[in-house]
Amino acid sequence: MRILLLNPNTTEAITGRLVAAAAAVASPGTEIVPLTAPRGVPYIASRAEAQIGGAVALEMLAEHHHKVDAAIIAAFGDPGLMGARELFDMPVVGMAEAAMLTACMLGRRFAIVTFARALGPWYRECVAMHGLEGRCAGIRMLDEGFADIAGVQEEKEAVIVELALRAVTEDEADCVILAGAPLAGLAARVADRIPVPVVDQMGAALKQAEALVALKPRKATAGTFRRPPPKPTEGLPEALAARIEGR
Amino acid sequence: MRILLLNPNTTEAITGRLVAAAAAVASPGTEIVPLTAPRGVPYIASRAEAQIGGAVALEMLAEHHHKVDAAIIAAFGDPGLMGARELFDMPVVGMAEAAMLTACMLGRRFAIVTFARALGPWYRECVAMHGLEGRCAGIRMLDEGFADIAGVQEEKEAVIVELALRAVTEDEADCVILAGAPLAGLAARVADRIPVPVVDQMGAALKQAEALVALKPRKATAGTFRRPPPKPTEGLPEALAARIEGR
Amino acid sequence: MRILLLNPNTTEAITGRLVAAAAAVASPGTEIVPLTAPRGVPYIASRAEAQIGGAVALEMLAEHHHKVDAAIIAAFGDPGLMGARELFDMPVVGMAEAAMLTACMLGRRFAIVTFARALGPWYRECVAMHGLEGRCAGIRMLDEGFADIAGVQEEKEAVIVELALRAVTEDEADCVILAGAPLAGLAARVADRIPVPVVDQMGAALKQAEALVALKPRKATAGTFRRPPPKPTEGLPEALAARIEGR
Amino acid sequence: MRILLLNPNTTEAITGRLVAAAAAVASPGTEIVPLTAPRGVPYIASRAEAQIGGAVALEMLAEHHHKVDAAIIAAFGDPGLMGARELFDMPVVGMAEAAMLTACMLGRRFAIVTFARALGPWYRECVAMHGLEGRCAGIRMLDEGFADIAGVQEEKEAVIVELALRAVTEDEADCVILAGAPLAGLAARVADRIPVPVVDQMGAALKQAEALVALKPRKATAGTFRRPPPKPTEGLPEALAARIEGR
Amino acid sequence: MRILLLNPNTTEAITGRLVAAAAAVASPGTEIVPLTAPRGVPYIASRAEAQIGGAVALEMLAEHHHKVDAAIIAAFGDPGLMGARELFDMPVVGMAEAAMLTACMLGRRFAIVTFARALGPWYRECVAMHGLEGRCAGIRMLDEGFADIAGVQEEKEAVIVELALRAVTEDEADCVILAGAPLAGLAARVADRIPVPVVDQMGAALKQAEALVALKPRKATAGTFRRPPPKPTEGLPEALAARIEGR
Amino acid sequence: MRILLLNPNTTEAITGRLVAAAAAVASPGTEIVPLTAPRGVPYIASRAEAQIGGAVALEMLAEHHHKVDAAIIAAFGDPGLMGARELFDMPVVGMAEAAMLTACMLGRRFAIVTFARALGPWYRECVAMHGLEGRCAGIRMLDEGFADIAGVQEEKEAVIVELALRAVTEDEADCVILAGAPLAGLAARVADRIPVPVVDQMGAALKQAEALVALKPRKATAGTFRRPPPKPTEGLPEALAARIEGR
Repeated sequence: MRILLLNPNTTEAITGRLVAAAAAVASPGTEIVPLTAPRGVPYIASRAEAQIGGAVALEMLAEHHHKVDAAIIAAFGDPGLMGARELFDMPVVGMAEAAMLTACMLGRRFAIVTFARALGPWYRECVAMHGLEGRCAGIRMLDEGFADIAGVQEEKEAVIVELALRAVTEDEADCVILAGAPLAGLAARVADRIPVPVVDQMGAALKQAEALVALKPRKATAGTFRRPPPKPTEGLPEALAARIEGR
Repeated sequence: MRILLLNPNTTEAITGRLVAAAAAVASPGTEIVPLTAPRGVPYIASRAEAQIGGAVALEMLAEHHHKVDAAIIAAFGDPGLMGARELFDMPVVGMAEAAMLTACMLGRRFAIVTFARALGPWYRECVAMHGLEGRCAGIRMLDEGFADIAGVQEEKEAVIVELALRAVTEDEADCVILAGAPLAGLAARVADRIPVPVVDQMGAALKQAEALVALKPRKATAGTFRRPPPKPTEGLPEALAARIEGR
Repeated sequence: MRILLLNPNTTEAITGRLVAAAAAVASPGTEIVPLTAPRGVPYIASRAEAQIGGAVALEMLAEHHHKVDAAIIAAFGDPGLMGARELFDMPVVGMAEAAMLTACMLGRRFAIVTFARALGPWYRECVAMHGLEGRCAGIRMLDEGFADIAGVQEEKEAVIVELALRAVTEDEADCVILAGAPLAGLAARVADRIPVPVVDQMGAALKQAEALVALKPRKATAGTFRRPPPKPTEGLPEALAARIEGR
Repeated sequence: MRILLLNPNTTEAITGRLVAAAAAVASPGTEIVPLTAPRGVPYIASRAEAQIGGAVALEMLAEHHHKVDAAIIAAFGDPGLMGARELFDMPVVGMAEAAMLTACMLGRRFAIVTFARALGPWYRECVAMHGLEGRCAGIRMLDEGFADIAGVQEEKEAVIVELALRAVTEDEADCVILAGAPLAGLAARVADRIPVPVVDQMGAALKQAEALVALKPRKATAGTFRRPPPKPTEGLPEALAARIEGR
Repeated sequence: MRILLLNPNTTEAITGRLVAAAAAVASPGTEIVPLTAPRGVPYIASRAEAQIGGAVALEMLAEHHHKVDAAIIAAFGDPGLMGARELFDMPVVGMAEAAMLTACMLGRRFAIVTFARALGPWYRECVAMHGLEGRCAGIRMLDEGFADIAGVQEEKEAVIVELALRAVTEDEADCVILAGAPLAGLAARVADRIPVPVVDQMGAALKQAEALVALKPRKATAGTFRRPPPKPTEGLPEALAARIEGR
Repeated sequence: MRILLLNPNTTEAITGRLVAAAAAVASPGTEIVPLTAPRGVPYIASRAEAQIGGAVALEMLAEHHHKVDAAIIAAFGDPGLMGARELFDMPVVGMAEAAMLTACMLGRRFAIVTFARALGPWYRECVAMHGLEGRCAGIRMLDEGFADIAGVQEEKEAVIVELALRAVTEDEADCVILAGAPLAGLAARVADRIPVPVVDQMGAALKQAEALVALKPRKATAGTFRRPPPKPTEGLPEALAARIEGR
């Protein structure tokens, strides 16, 4: 099966991190198709950027959806996820969604640990969007600057582990998610220093996408995720316009 | 004061409806500055379209924000609202938000009545986004096609009133919101046929925008709605790029 | 338009504060009609006092409602609000309600900051009564005695600002409400020392009352806020008895 | 032990019903001290009436609290309950509260069945005030006029049983509360026609009051139900003034 | 009346504690019938142990239910409670349930204070099972080892009081429950050192069981607590098999 | 990898159904190890039976856990799941849990459709246990007897499809779960008659178990799912006793 790994950030180096983390757990027959956002910001970190990045994700899916069996929107926060699920026929998985649902099977409450304070509000709204507030023990954010987004996981490894430990001790988290695309792959490296299961967001998303493909769910033709009826558009990129117009 | 009335739909005729409804309740010193989306869809009716329309709203605000004292995002569903509130310095009001908050002062629970089934899921998520589920008695949607979006409020007037009456009788609504930009102004025409207060979404939004301007709230420099720090962008429209890059 | 500013406390000096804060933001055509409770306690600060003060508010409205276009119950905690909304025909706004709904347009979560520990439980129940728990970041209360209720806002200005700052930093509030009638008008004086929008409860209530009058909502004749059918009474003040008896 | 049975309605005949229902389940050593409201309305049926009735209940308690070991506020809706619990030293039980808490031990979800549509909104807010929404399967109200409040339980017996049966079948209630002081004692007469446990509100309140007296809880001197510090009053009935002023 | 005091732990000394606490508040005509689990663990302290202990409780009830008017499952956490309520005809009360419902009449929010960290998660799930999260101010757990489960209440008395005081001061609890069967009876000894009402779990359960017997609720023949229809079994203890098989 | 498929019902024919549904979606390297409960009831359908069945599941896991990489508790309702997750070292997945979490990726709200009214209350409590009430559109239960539990899915196929269609149309479900072990495998046969994705509970559980094994989460040594410290036991089956005693 072919799985689109869609990075809605414009940073290629993050896509590389994501691919490596996905490949580490992929099943033999799975081919990962990576894609980096052609426009937007280096890494999404606010509601405004998520609004834009989600629209860009829809444009990217419109161009590439026919080549794959499923897609992963690989930014924690899941920009554009619900719209994508409406508009396209194959399964689409959000990286935050997959990480949180997987974490639910490993504990009563999960903690989200991330590398920048700015990400907290967006992540909190993402938890709410998925109706998982009751399963979330809290969000811990690093409160320091960093040198380079592509290397933030090495630079801040020690303090991120420290935050995870506090989430376990003080927030009573049963499980930890290291969140934010730039942290993809970090879980494997630090898991043995954290006394509860650590979920790698990208690994979880890859396995969930594989699971959905294997289960072969049909595209809804009723309910709130059926494809909307064709509608005229103006000024949208060609592939997206065609998809919305039903061409 | 100058208030931007931003219609994220591309239909000029809807903007006209909105302006008329706003003008009907505006205070003497208020100038309404209308703006119709230059790209997108004729009327937003799904999550995907709201994702795109919200991004377009940010582009429009980036071009025009310096000319006004406040802005209204005049689509029920509030596309792009939270991002706009982050990125810009003046008050930004969502039309759904304003209608619902106003309705809260007129009853324990409000009903939302709209003209197309497709709008229901998006509106429901909007209610949840504002944390007002406990105040919403339900969403009633018309389940029939219509001839023309610009004239839907006249065409369907009788059945919309019928839906509102059922919301009062069966859902125990204390108050009714006629929702969806194409219905702007309908409330005034049908209010005397409905035995509870009927909130006009656009009227409410205009008054709330005026109220916020009068109260002169400062732009946050802390909390989750402070303006994000400047960040490079790629491929975004010039005004939006400049705003995000802090130029 | 004429707006009744009903202070359910017996302290005239607080009414003066409230009127000044209201006048500061009133529109040109608005006339403020102040009224101080003729019986009760100097300032309501407990559930028992709110029970009594709310009944007194109904008595006051029964005497004066025909002279005004809208009324504000000007005690944070909104004593008697729901009963007033049932029993009388014009819009009635609660000062806490108006402050919180206004704050909802300025941030994801608001903090309530007040001058006495005793007020916390009552305010918490007020937040719940309005179904806004999900929008409230917390209630911060000063834990010290004060010399005089009429001067508490000057006496405690510095520590109240300090509490507001902690609400922003520790509770992640996007917006602050300085709560309690004795603090009316303080917001304007301290807003530039607090890095998020500060809502003045009285200012918000005045603007919301003006907005409701402008929108001309009809009195409900159905739903839970229709006027109850006439009923005999015994031993109630004449005006209230007449209103309940439908005389 | 002596238990005050405080009827905040002015109808003596209802007090008689309540006393009979209480006496039917009282323990040998329990003395019931009945008291009917000296002012107010014949039966409370709206938020405004509850606001007034709750204040009257506080006046009644201020006069009589020293003569008893516990008090029951015997109107479903619990007017004045939280204030009473603050202001007085002995246990105070609400009739709605006692019925609902007792019902929680007899099923997952209880239905509330009552004799007049007007009561629904007030009861719903009472359920919310006690935080028991998740345990309430619904409120069923009779939608017909009745001849005489004192005889409503005989007049409407058959239709009330019918409503209870529908609550079981359609709302999946495990247990039924026949609510409203005028229905006191009805449960015993109809229990064998309803296939789930039926809670008599007054019986439950009497047993809960007895239980609290037996458990001898201390009066709080901390927390939100400690007695408020003495405070001046103006124009309040003597006994209530004395209690609030700490005389 | 005869009330079965069922201890699902295997420790006889705890049963002794429970009987003493129950006897201290029992009404004259009440006979307490104690029963200690014949198999299981000395004291239940985890979800796995509660799963097993709850099944053992059902076995015990199957053998003894016909001898009593009501039963108490006397472990905080209420193992097997809902199943017991389904399967047997007389009232069954959980000790946690009774303590929490009683506490609801003594304050807005109760704190649960217990002697071992391990108990926290199980208790938290018990609060949720009863739908009382909104009434619970928090769970405070002692974080130290102890010498002997039967004497833990004397050994840790001072630190448990200390925890209770912190629950009042820091968590704003209006009322405290000393939780866990080994603490039965401790409330009476320490109540005067804690400034809010302290609920003894066993005392509360005994009074609630007495109340239910006095109210004579019928066994449901509809709803979710009717007795399930007879069904074959395999390998279950004889009395339990007979009950399930309807023999 | 080896995955234990633990059927806590005593009916071998149901185990056969489950194995077939699991095998249909298993990855090449996955070996399914089936196990049928040696004691209990033919199919669990009430809280009491789930209490017993969950304890039996722990006994079964204690005997077989060392032979497998993960286990599935294959009864919708997840009896014993949380205890199993505490007590054993490998991942344990509940069939209801897996179906619901998978469904969350296919729609906003899922419906649960099952073959017997008795199952509703237990399933509802299971949804709540997982904190997924906000994602559940409702539970639809067949209200007719059936000839044979092992053949119920063929016998009732048409009416179950009918229920699913009503869940989509009336409850606005985006996705349907056919629930109850006796329905395992039915989804594949009826999916093309239902216009939204249909989740096969067993298929979902198998894929989730595979995903967890691939992600290699560590056993918690902190948090609420760490293994409880060794403790003496009395009268428990040897393998379970050994596990609890830490032998």
